[in-house]
Amino acid sequence: MNRQTSSDSDRDDSRHTAQLSTTSLDLDRRRRCGYPEVVYGKGKTVETLVEIFTAMLDEGQEVFATRISPKKADRLQSSFANGQYNQLARTFRLSPTPAKHSTGSKPTPAEVAIITAGTSDLPVAEEARETLDWMGVSVTMIHDVGVAGPHRLPARLAEFETARAIVVVAGMEGALPSVVGGYVACPVIAVPTSVGYGASLNGIAALLSMLNSCASNVAVVNIDAGFKAGYLAGLIAKTDPSDENRTAGTEE
Amino acid sequence: MNRQTSSDSDRDDSRHTAQLSTTSLDLDRRRRCGYPEVVYGKGKTVETLVEIFTAMLDEGQEVFATRISPKKADRLQSSFANGQYNQLARTFRLSPTPAKHSTGSKPTPAEVAIITAGTSDLPVAEEARETLDWMGVSVTMIHDVGVAGPHRLPARLAEFETARAIVVVAGMEGALPSVVGGYVACPVIAVPTSVGYGASLNGIAALLSMLNSCASNVAVVNIDAGFKAGYLAGLIAKTDPSDENRTAGTEE
Amino acid sequence: MNRQTSSDSDRDDSRHTAQLSTTSLDLDRRRRCGYPEVVYGKGKTVETLVEIFTAMLDEGQEVFATRISPKKADRLQSSFANGQYNQLARTFRLSPTPAKHSTGSKPTPAEVAIITAGTSDLPVAEEARETLDWMGVSVTMIHDVGVAGPHRLPARLAEFETARAIVVVAGMEGALPSVVGGYVACPVIAVPTSVGYGASLNGIAALLSMLNSCASNVAVVNIDAGFKAGYLAGLIAKTDPSDENRTAGTEE
Amino acid sequence: MNRQTSSDSDRDDSRHTAQLSTTSLDLDRRRRCGYPEVVYGKGKTVETLVEIFTAMLDEGQEVFATRISPKKADRLQSSFANGQYNQLARTFRLSPTPAKHSTGSKPTPAEVAIITAGTSDLPVAEEARETLDWMGVSVTMIHDVGVAGPHRLPARLAEFETARAIVVVAGMEGALPSVVGGYVACPVIAVPTSVGYGASLNGIAALLSMLNSCASNVAVVNIDAGFKAGYLAGLIAKTDPSDENRTAGTEE
Amino acid sequence: MNRQTSSDSDRDDSRHTAQLSTTSLDLDRRRRCGYPEVVYGKGKTVETLVEIFTAMLDEGQEVFATRISPKKADRLQSSFANGQYNQLARTFRLSPTPAKHSTGSKPTPAEVAIITAGTSDLPVAEEARETLDWMGVSVTMIHDVGVAGPHRLPARLAEFETARAIVVVAGMEGALPSVVGGYVACPVIAVPTSVGYGASLNGIAALLSMLNSCASNVAVVNIDAGFKAGYLAGLIAKTDPSDENRTAGTEE
Amino acid sequence: MNRQTSSDSDRDDSRHTAQLSTTSLDLDRRRRCGYPEVVYGKGKTVETLVEIFTAMLDEGQEVFATRISPKKADRLQSSFANGQYNQLARTFRLSPTPAKHSTGSKPTPAEVAIITAGTSDLPVAEEARETLDWMGVSVTMIHDVGVAGPHRLPARLAEFETARAIVVVAGMEGALPSVVGGYVACPVIAVPTSVGYGASLNGIAALLSMLNSCASNVAVVNIDAGFKAGYLAGLIAKTDPSDENRTAGTEE
Amino acid sequence: MNRQTSSDSDRDDSRHTAQLSTTSLDLDRRRRCGYPEVVYGKGKTVETLVEIFTAMLDEGQEVFATRISPKKADRLQSSFANGQYNQLARTFRLSPTPAKHSTGSKPTPAEVAIITAGTSDLPVAEEARETLDWMGVSVTMIHDVGVAGPHRLPARLAEFETARAIVVVAGMEGALPSVVGGYVACPVIAVPTSVGYGASLNGIAALLSMLNSCASNVAVVNIDAGFKAGYLAGLIAKTDPSDENRTAGTEE
Amino acid sequence: MNRQTSSDSDRDDSRHTAQLSTTSLDLDRRRRCGYPEVVYGKGKTVETLVEIFTAMLDEGQEVFATRISPKKADRLQSSFANGQYNQLARTFRLSPTPAKHSTGSKPTPAEVAIITAGTSDLPVAEEARETLDWMGVSVTMIHDVGVAGPHRLPARLAEFETARAIVVVAGMEGALPSVVGGYVACPVIAVPTSVGYGASLNGIAALLSMLNSCASNVAVVNIDAGFKAGYLAGLIAKTDPSDENRTAGTEE
Repeated sequence: MNRQTSSDSDRDDSRHTAQLSTTSLDLDRRRRCGYPEVVYGKGKTVETLVEIFTAMLDEGQEVFATRISPKKADRLQSSFANGQYNQLARTFRLSPTPAKHSTGSKPTPAEVAIITAGTSDLPVAEEARETLDWMGVSVTMIHDVGVAGPHRLPARLAEFETARAIVVVAGMEGALPSVVGGYVACPVIAVPTSVGYGASLNGIAALLSMLNSCASNVAVVNIDAGFKAGYLAGLIAKTDPSDENRTAGTEE
Repeated sequence: MNRQTSSDSDRDDSRHTAQLSTTSLDLDRRRRCGYPEVVYGKGKTVETLVEIFTAMLDEGQEVFATRISPKKADRLQSSFANGQYNQLARTFRLSPTPAKHSTGSKPTPAEVAIITAGTSDLPVAEEARETLDWMGVSVTMIHDVGVAGPHRLPARLAEFETARAIVVVAGMEGALPSVVGGYVACPVIAVPTSVGYGASLNGIAALLSMLNSCASNVAVVNIDAGFKAGYLAGLIAKTDPSDENRTAGTEE
Repeated sequence: MNRQTSSDSDRDDSRHTAQLSTTSLDLDRRRRCGYPEVVYGKGKTVETLVEIFTAMLDEGQEVFATRISPKKADRLQSSFANGQYNQLARTFRLSPTPAKHSTGSKPTPAEVAIITAGTSDLPVAEEARETLDWMGVSVTMIHDVGVAGPHRLPARLAEFETARAIVVVAGMEGALPSVVGGYVACPVIAVPTSVGYGASLNGIAALLSMLNSCASNVAVVNIDAGFKAGYLAGLIAKTDPSDENRTAGTEE
Repeated sequence: MNRQTSSDSDRDDSRHTAQLSTTSLDLDRRRRCGYPEVVYGKGKTVETLVEIFTAMLDEGQEVFATRISPKKADRLQSSFANGQYNQLARTFRLSPTPAKHSTGSKPTPAEVAIITAGTSDLPVAEEARETLDWMGVSVTMIHDVGVAGPHRLPARLAEFETARAIVVVAGMEGALPSVVGGYVACPVIAVPTSVGYGASLNGIAALLSMLNSCASNVAVVNIDAGFKAGYLAGLIAKTDPSDENRTAGTEE
Repeated sequence: MNRQTSSDSDRDDSRHTAQLSTTSLDLDRRRRCGYPEVVYGKGKTVETLVEIFTAMLDEGQEVFATRISPKKADRLQSSFANGQYNQLARTFRLSPTPAKHSTGSKPTPAEVAIITAGTSDLPVAEEARETLDWMGVSVTMIHDVGVAGPHRLPARLAEFETARAIVVVAGMEGALPSVVGGYVACPVIAVPTSVGYGASLNGIAALLSMLNSCASNVAVVNIDAGFKAGYLAGLIAKTDPSDENRTAGTEE
Repeated sequence: MNRQTSSDSDRDDSRHTAQLSTTSLDLDRRRRCGYPEVVYGKGKTVETLVEIFTAMLDEGQEVFATRISPKKADRLQSSFANGQYNQLARTFRLSPTPAKHSTGSKPTPAEVAIITAGTSDLPVAEEARETLDWMGVSVTMIHDVGVAGPHRLPARLAEFETARAIVVVAGMEGALPSVVGGYVACPVIAVPTSVGYGASLNGIAALLSMLNSCASNVAVVNIDAGFKAGYLAGLIAKTDPSDENRTAGTEE
Repeated sequence: MNRQTSSDSDRDDSRHTAQLSTTSLDLDRRRRCGYPEVVYGKGKTVETLVEIFTAMLDEGQEVFATRISPKKADRLQSSFANGQYNQLARTFRLSPTPAKHSTGSKPTPAEVAIITAGTSDLPVAEEARETLDWMGVSVTMIHDVGVAGPHRLPARLAEFETARAIVVVAGMEGALPSVVGGYVACPVIAVPTSVGYGASLNGIAALLSMLNSCASNVAVVNIDAGFKAGYLAGLIAKTDPSDENRTAGTEE
Repeated sequence: MNRQTSSDSDRDDSRHTAQLSTTSLDLDRRRRCGYPEVVYGKGKTVETLVEIFTAMLDEGQEVFATRISPKKADRLQSSFANGQYNQLARTFRLSPTPAKHSTGSKPTPAEVAIITAGTSDLPVAEEARETLDWMGVSVTMIHDVGVAGPHRLPARLAEFETARAIVVVAGMEGALPSVVGGYVACPVIAVPTSVGYGASLNGIAALLSMLNSCASNVAVVNIDAGFKAGYLAGLIAKTDPSDENRTAGTEE
């Protein structure tokens, strides 16, 4: 995760942007932000996606795309045979070199825990898990421990209390992040989901609930934003106070 | 709580309404609904309140008024020296006969529990408590056990798990009723409060949260509606399956 | 409806949770909350539902599932031939032992009344009725007595005035619960429905109306939440002040 | 209420507008719309009001101003000694010639009925009553007959069922217009008020409720818009199918 | 439009309600409200509609149903061969006796004008027109005269300025009712439509605009509520100050 | 863009409106507003569109229609073989005389720049580009320079800083217009798009963001309103302070 | 309004920012955006304002501050005796050299017209007028010509139809910009105001109305944003197609 | 920041809660969550605050209270002479032992950067700064670098690009967090503020904007929640991957 300082990076910004047909690909992002650009699949045609993926692979970058429908995934797979599609998470991954992610050899205990309130929250949790896996962060998942069965969460405290960051995924009243936040010392990234009906307002109720959490360690992302929650948790888990980058810029 | 059936009550409706200057006082309510009309103080002048109170006392009814400001209470007390004002709850009570409420001799355990998430929720809880006291229902209060300190609530489970109904008062994310609901078999009346700031939207966040509760036994009333929550809990606690009124109307 | 007190139940919480593939089934709920967990069908695959149903039947519990689409019901019925599907209510029921529900021998008069404003509110009312039937509570239904035909409701007062709890289902302006509340002494559980168009905002108008009811005995649940309303009414109807559980915990 | 047709009125529009310092006074309105312009007092200084009133009196027009605060009324009265201020309604009236309004000799029964749900709705009802009085329409008022005391309204049916138009003023759940609408054959003008708290959202709940009324004869005006409701009811009451203006334009 | 007074009508309410399978048909409405009940088709099955229509025809009442989809209309027509369906308006009409509506012999000028802002507002306007035709009220229609072409409306002033009531149908910014209101002396019933996109919020923008109209003679109904607007305009047009019903009840 | 003054145009308004079956076509708009009426295709049938197009061609006017679905375009093309359809922009154009638009000979630099935040904003940007092309205004397009890659925009400053007006198209947080506004001296027309999910509320988040822009030169149009943004930018680019029309009306 | 191109301006950005105690003053804005930074007074202490004003005067820049309360203005005037305060507009101006603004010798006709719907919209209109005066743009003001008196606006068409840009200020239903937009060929900047009550939602109703304007030439700014509207209109009026800056950057 | 694992902490929960008059003080939080409970001052009386502060000091805990008004601070200072009040941040701090916070000897570079968009955002930023200071985290502050002056932020990149976490405070359009997020590799905690007017909706616009940020590393807290943002940034900055607590629980 080495990064240059700003002093010499301003000079050649244009070099770092690939002007595709309708896309300005940010190839400099890995240097600047630690990870390459993640491709948001919704609203992009398969043609555009192929063009972007190819440009990234040419630069030797790992491709990670979110919100890829099964239909698009089928067509992408015909262009990129070694692409890996997770239908539940709707993510598509592609490596410039043979399989280096998902090694499974990560040390125990997990760096990040993902906790869901109900089984309907699973797709969002999976998107977060794929993101963390892509970042090389070890994950543990705890499912279906919503507040209406209040004994289920503390029974599994040992599985998540040593995580460096926790992603909590919940719809309906969105109360779980507050409860989790009260048990741990690490940051909690709360993801409201659109699970529910009526006054859930497609996730607005859970979102408002989480924003008003009386637990001090709860931050919130957009409704159903599994990727963003995973990404933030990964950045937190990777934060290293002894990282030399904090005091001086170095070459990659 | 004896009530007549409808068969003979339809004939003389007009007798049961007292036409005051700007008020149509419902003197028949005790027969029809089990308790006399409760006076909502907001938006009524002291003159109107005095007129209503006097008419009710003349009918031998207990007066119970809510949302009475301290300023109004001062002036009411000069007209009704034995009126009892609770400044925190903003309630005013008045008896046609010497002090029969608040006897304190109610049997243990309490019929209704009132649980608050934080100390700022106290005024709303007090309004509920006064209401239940007026109805002759025994109450236990458990304060400041919000979800961010998750061990506080189960530590006091014995105090509320045998209640016939529970009033839960909470602002901010409004998560407490769901958690309480998961511990008990009785109905939970959830009262959102306007405690909070920003995205709490003056209680809307807590209201939506409670409406979406994943606990099946949670019903909701209006924001800050301590009176209504107390009244409902009181009705539930007083429900008696062996009450002969259910099969036939009888004289009062 | 015997329940243990909390004193000895904290020790073995983990025993009461069945860890299925993506579900933490709360098998302890019947002891704690009086009834087994009800399965919310939306957002769960048929495979997950079969896994949950099987685990519950293995524990000897009655299965009651809501929000089951006709398509899912078809596939469930092929796994559980004796499952009972109510298409209007979208509920699915399954018994570990031969048919013990719906005996029809309930005593008169009904413990709970369900009142609808219009015929479009029927599916929500049916969900409530199925729930009460599953709980063993007798029900009477009164349809299409909305406020625009104001003489229809009082004409049927004798059918609902002795109920222990009333469920009122209404869309559009949601005025019916207030009117019903003015006639009776028992709690009214109001269910707003998404029936209407334009400014009904998919049930928000009815929801706000019911929350602001000037009748003191009206509590509210989520839009279209027929199950929750039925469940609450059932709990209220079953409340028994002479229940020995209120004074001491006993073995099941 | 004679009016010209459009054929010759287009020629001299500019004559009908008085250009005051910051106001373009519409002096032609009585001819075009049947009544002179009504002055909306909020946001106008006393100086502007005096200027407008004087211009209207000079044209021989009746002055009717709404939303006049008591403080402004005091100062206006010092300029116009014979001005009539209604503090509850916040209206101010002024006549170019000695006292011709409020003659009180209107025929019975009243042409318009104004019905309120609660005593807090009185100021809005008074604004409507003053407006109708200014239009020369006879009015009957029925107060405090909200739906929670459902027997109060039918008991007074004889007082309003023969009106040509009815103004119904209600806050909180705003259910009363639907019920009134079900009893009568004339148009009902519903006025939501900002009476209530919490989820009443300053009258939005009542407004939505009224817009969704299942009664076909209910139209709605803005929250607290007593003037507009009165004005519309007055126009309806004055509609005359035999009016010769409908077939041909005539001179004033 | 003769109506009885209330004095003797209270005795036999139950006679006037037909208890169908899931419907309480209000057969008394014509006496009480001047017109028979109008059937709201949405959310009712064809079977229910056939049952209702048959019951009404048996009572000799004109059937008028709104929100009937083309698919339902097809099936209804096979049961009622002489039913008249207006596909644009989505209305279905049926007469107990041979064709008496739509005689076309109504006197000029029209009693009600319907004015639309754009051609997309046509279906709502047609629903209003069908309603007025069913009520026996003569109508003139003026289309596509929205405010962005400001000379179009005054050019047609002669066609609507003598109407007794005007229905104005507009989506998007909903400005047209205010402008029409400034030209005429009669009540204007404004119907917001869901025409528009983005910040039109499915008609909420037009609805709010109309509620805030600075014209005093504008009342508002629900979004796309063509029936209700037509019904109100029809009631206003039929108001007759010399009607003897206003002073005493008479036999039908 | 010559225009007449109002002095003599009031006399013959009716001549300038073509009364089609359900449309009042504003044929005078080119004189009054500089460009002919643009046809909004949504909610109009193909038959209506053909009628309108024919009437405009008969008057020698350029036809420009927006929101034309591919299906409608197919059918229109069979009536108007030389019509030009842009599927991405959903626009349809038709010329009374052979091909005079899109000459491509416009002088460099471009008069208007269109800048998009992401590739999903392209359809809206295309609608704006087609509009400007129809107006004869030269355009440059800069794609995919949203704020999360903050070096991309300044790298292309030379391409837009000399434009007379800039259209900025952005969804999600809608931050780009503020940043663009800080770099330039010309007006910025911001178009929020419905691109995004969850709390984007179909474009409301971007809309609010743009309305609150801290840049002084940012005006806003409706969500997805590519046409309106293009039209406004075109009017600004064509504004000519030395235009003699500003001092006196002349013949076209 | 000469401006440099970006080519050489990137090198010395830091020079152009004055780091005051809590403010980063953008002294480069005049070069980049044509006018110096305008100071938003709300939320800034008098001490901060004095510090900012002094720094700007030291750089020889004209000071223009908005949202200055009368109380703050008093205290500012004691520091800057020649400051000019407009209490209605709440603006404060200060010149580094003696009085050069407001020369009054601007050529007729006015470059920008400001049109208000009602007298309550005056303060917002005044803020726009002060802004344009500061920019050296000539202005004409037309007051109180809202749509409910529809003949008032066309009567004054000659005063605004030759403007290069028009600012329309309106509260309540916000219909005026659409009507103005239909009369002219120039851009209309619509400013919703918070004038109104109830469903005006503090200006949201007018804002939505304006965003949905069916007139193509209407752009919108924030509620009560008189400054921004004036600034945009000024930029449009000053746009000069023959400006050499558009083809090449030159020295100031 | 040593913490015990859950295994032995469950046994004595009740010991860790101090039951004050209306407060259940969570004295166990430092062990469980790393820091003692922070006191939210709003809605608590001075008496309650004194009681809480005294209990915490008795336990040897640092007191940190937020949302303390100047009036309350005055009275608190008379009870706790060595209390430190920050009026801008509205925080109150109190130490059981002499002054150990704010040593100022923190190593460069700062662990957390706080960046504000405008000077009006200062109070919220100060609350975050006080929180971080209390946590012993070094902070750098960068003020007034909002997006409308786009060169100001990159000019100061060196000051924040090496931070472990960044707090960005912005009102109005809330665009700054997205831009900051594009420059750095660490998590960004975005705080919307209620700075703005009209369509800022008291901070809702900024909140929505931040939730929709296209930058992947932006998490959001409640409006004006300076404390929570500071607390989260502090937790992130303190995260230590080599912390032995992650693998095994140890004694404090």
